Amino acid sequence: MTENVRIFDTTLRDGEQSPGIALDVGEKLEIAEQLARLGVDIIEAGFPIASQGDFEAVEAIAKTVQGATVAGLSRTGFKDVDRAWEAVQHAARPRLHVFIATSPIHMKKKLRMTEDQVKAEAAAGVARARSYCDDVEFSPEDGSRSDSDFMCEVCQLAVDNGATTINIPDTVGYGVPEEFASLIAYVLDRVRGDYVVSTHCHDDLGLAVANSLAGVKAGARQVECAINGLGERAGNAALEEIVMAIKTRPDYFEHLETRVKTDELARTSRIVARLTGYPVQHNKAVVGRNAFAHEAGIHQHGVLEDRETYEIIDAATVGQEAAQIVLGKHSGRHAFSDSLAKMGLHVHGAALDAAFTRFKELSDRKVQITEADLEAIVAEELGTGFVQRFDIVSLDLHGGTSSTPTATVVLTGQEGERRGTGTGNGMIDAAIAAIAEATGVEGRLTDFAVQAVTGGGDALGDVVIQVEVDGARISGRGVATDVVEASARAYLHAVNKIVRLREHPEPREHEIGP
Amino acid sequence: MTENVRIFDTTLRDGEQSPGIALDVGEKLEIAEQLARLGVDIIEAGFPIASQGDFEAVEAIAKTVQGATVAGLSRTGFKDVDRAWEAVQHAARPRLHVFIATSPIHMKKKLRMTEDQVKAEAAAGVARARSYCDDVEFSPEDGSRSDSDFMCEVCQLAVDNGATTINIPDTVGYGVPEEFASLIAYVLDRVRGDYVVSTHCHDDLGLAVANSLAGVKAGARQVECAINGLGERAGNAALEEIVMAIKTRPDYFEHLETRVKTDELARTSRIVARLTGYPVQHNKAVVGRNAFAHEAGIHQHGVLEDRETYEIIDAATVGQEAAQIVLGKHSGRHAFSDSLAKMGLHVHGAALDAAFTRFKELSDRKVQITEADLEAIVAEELGTGFVQRFDIVSLDLHGGTSSTPTATVVLTGQEGERRGTGTGNGMIDAAIAAIAEATGVEGRLTDFAVQAVTGGGDALGDVVIQVEVDGARISGRGVATDVVEASARAYLHAVNKIVRLREHPEPREHEIGP
Repeated sequence: MTENVRIFDTTLRDGEQSPGIALDVGEKLEIAEQLARLGVDIIEAGFPIASQGDFEAVEAIAKTVQGATVAGLSRTGFKDVDRAWEAVQHAARPRLHVFIATSPIHMKKKLRMTEDQVKAEAAAGVARARSYCDDVEFSPEDGSRSDSDFMCEVCQLAVDNGATTINIPDTVGYGVPEEFASLIAYVLDRVRGDYVVSTHCHDDLGLAVANSLAGVKAGARQVECAINGLGERAGNAALEEIVMAIKTRPDYFEHLETRVKTDELARTSRIVARLTGYPVQHNKAVVGRNAFAHEAGIHQHGVLEDRETYEIIDAATVGQEAAQIVLGKHSGRHAFSDSLAKMGLHVHGAALDAAFTRFKELSDRKVQITEADLEAIVAEELGTGFVQRFDIVSLDLHGGTSSTPTATVVLTGQEGERRGTGTGNGMIDAAIAAIAEATGVEGRLTDFAVQAVTGGGDALGDVVIQVEVDGARISGRGVATDVVEASARAYLHAVNKIVRLREHPEPREHEIGP
Repeated sequence: MTENVRIFDTTLRDGEQSPGIALDVGEKLEIAEQLARLGVDIIEAGFPIASQGDFEAVEAIAKTVQGATVAGLSRTGFKDVDRAWEAVQHAARPRLHVFIATSPIHMKKKLRMTEDQVKAEAAAGVARARSYCDDVEFSPEDGSRSDSDFMCEVCQLAVDNGATTINIPDTVGYGVPEEFASLIAYVLDRVRGDYVVSTHCHDDLGLAVANSLAGVKAGARQVECAINGLGERAGNAALEEIVMAIKTRPDYFEHLETRVKTDELARTSRIVARLTGYPVQHNKAVVGRNAFAHEAGIHQHGVLEDRETYEIIDAATVGQEAAQIVLGKHSGRHAFSDSLAKMGLHVHGAALDAAFTRFKELSDRKVQITEADLEAIVAEELGTGFVQRFDIVSLDLHGGTSSTPTATVVLTGQEGERRGTGTGNGMIDAAIAAIAEATGVEGRLTDFAVQAVTGGGDALGDVVIQVEVDGARISGRGVATDVVEASARAYLHAVNKIVRLREHPEPREHEIGP
């Protein structure tokens, strides 16, 4: 008899709140589709009242994504709850996730409420949620710094008013495993009724995964976590580590399992890293480039006669093999769209056209196109497929250490071609100046990172930038065999988002949540 | 009465074994100096018998670095022990660290020894080490997968033959906190004598920090860890997380403290990331860019009236404030060298000259030079200061989407100027081809990553590449305001290392260790 530990993924809510991540609806949908394919039980799709964009994304995911429960976050106020329900109601299995803080510091400094007010809010918010939906989760925010008895009283009120999951957050990442396990056991002991206990741990001291697993050992049957450990500050518990720990140590986590298809972990990690612009460090457990000894190759062949000598997980189990070659120069549109479908990438209409054009350009320069290359191209086109304003026709540069780097760019826009020239400290700087002149959008570059998609001289450069403009930080992404061109594409990607935001400004609630 | 938990840093041994990291003596010395400044108790400087380069680095660190114990790793064979002692003997406080595997799979597949042979080896190796040195550490490799009774018998032999520290490795990252704590308690209970118990945990399941801390709670008084969690595969326990957990939770880790100066953590992390070419992910605990809520700035000012609402560590405690502006265009050589000294960077001779020249070039292009900029320049020059062969005189490029990218480079070498031209898929590719022509060293680019050192259009691009040549992977690093120039510098940096390696080939032992 095995028992399921539910995997509640909050990449699109807590993860998406990380500074500089600004996913549009298309990107969020792509991540949600992949999460469903990965087999998570619950997708927390966003915080619908926070902004119009959040609302639309949650609604689109609820309408489209099959196979997982779709949750929306909400404070206790009726306006919040109503808006969250409006967004998630379309899902086959909707969930409302209501929260309010129960720690002294949060009640005093953030909520400015008494204990009695917090109790009344929790009861009313949960009751309202339950009036819409049978699946209601309640979280006492900053639970680990709350008075345990008071927190349990609030949780009891939540259960009495219809909550079916009680989630205990270590909002500030303060817990240690032994203590956090005791807290979970205490809740199970004190709060009466029919509900599932859940963990939500932050990684400020590097203990999020250990705390979550200690919670599971103490009786929690849901873990809130995020791909690549994304989330506020040091992030949430990493989904891939939670899942692989339970799978790798069945002797310790007796009778427990998750429904996650582990061979989708590596791809999910890559897609999330690319779309958010948050790369994973080489020595990250499970999904990092070096997580498996055999990757090292050269230095270790002598030792690795038996892989188990130094490896407890097989790379294939998490889908982390070398990217396969899927297409070549002569592959047509059908083969291209077929390959995407096999990889589970859903691209349609303008985004598919644009991706195919990019693929043909790329296949002129690169002999073998791998899965990772395709993912990178599609990731770039996804973000702009819905709102493409400007596209690059040509980009030419000259200069170097003996003459000032100068760029000339020709763009297509909705109102015909535009040209721009620019100079700068370097080639990329010059290309950005040229684009700024052509589009009239000038931003300050606040971050810049390039990763090679695969090895070799003809590898794709995958550029992620952050641009500050109008007081907001916008990320942009571009891929090309030339890093300068990829950077120009990334800047243009950000410019296209800015143009859209200027036309549809999105005020946002300032709220962090569990 | 407080008790000290010794911090044993293995960045230069286990960390340096990560694929693609190839630090030279100058770079290792720089890291060791910073580790001493950080206040670690023991620096594991390397594995002297592995290669001539390892030997020289350990010897140089033992001779130069003050304030920390300097340890060298050794298998049990006398040749290993003798060589390790030859390297560390110059230290004010030397330590020999002897290891042999005790797990069934390692004994059978790697050592091909019986239990009795392993016991005899451990006893003899430790006795030999103790004949040289009062401070001897012993590790039963793959301890967590060993039979506990057998492992304790081997450890008892080690103590009886003079070991003063017994280090229990979770070599494959298989442990969970509760179990690992029991193992530490079992060792303390079973092995008699006067010794300190230590932990050495790997992060394959994301539990290295939790396992180490559980070990401390069970009585371990030394933790083996590495900056940024570097190490084989998913790495070792992250030093910064161990230290901050003990410091942030004095109520839990009663009476325990480390001697680490936490306000040096962020700088140490930056230096190690730069010299190894292993960047830290944004959401990494303690030292990641987003580890502190206030970094996010824009979205959260409403909530953060009281910082403690969402933060348990103050950024200043770990030295993670914005990099300060230290120098400008008119700063002279004296001010430059003064600033480096204040930052604790020791650069002399040719490396100082080269760094100053780079600084002047940079100050022509960039108005404000920050601490982070200086660190980046010095990091680049360090690696080449000892063995500079080729340097860039000029680099000019033209091309783009309408004409093939073409580069022309002029280099200085020991035998006068050399020129090269090259074309490629992109600007960087062309620049590399030109350098390959000029130097006659052609490598395959296996990895490429760029990080911006600071924000803004005039930010330095910090490029780290890996080049495969003659069957070995060599890393190179370059910084410049132009990413193409930085990439060319990085490639040239790798070329200079390759030239040196061809003149002084370094055969290396294939051994992983605890």
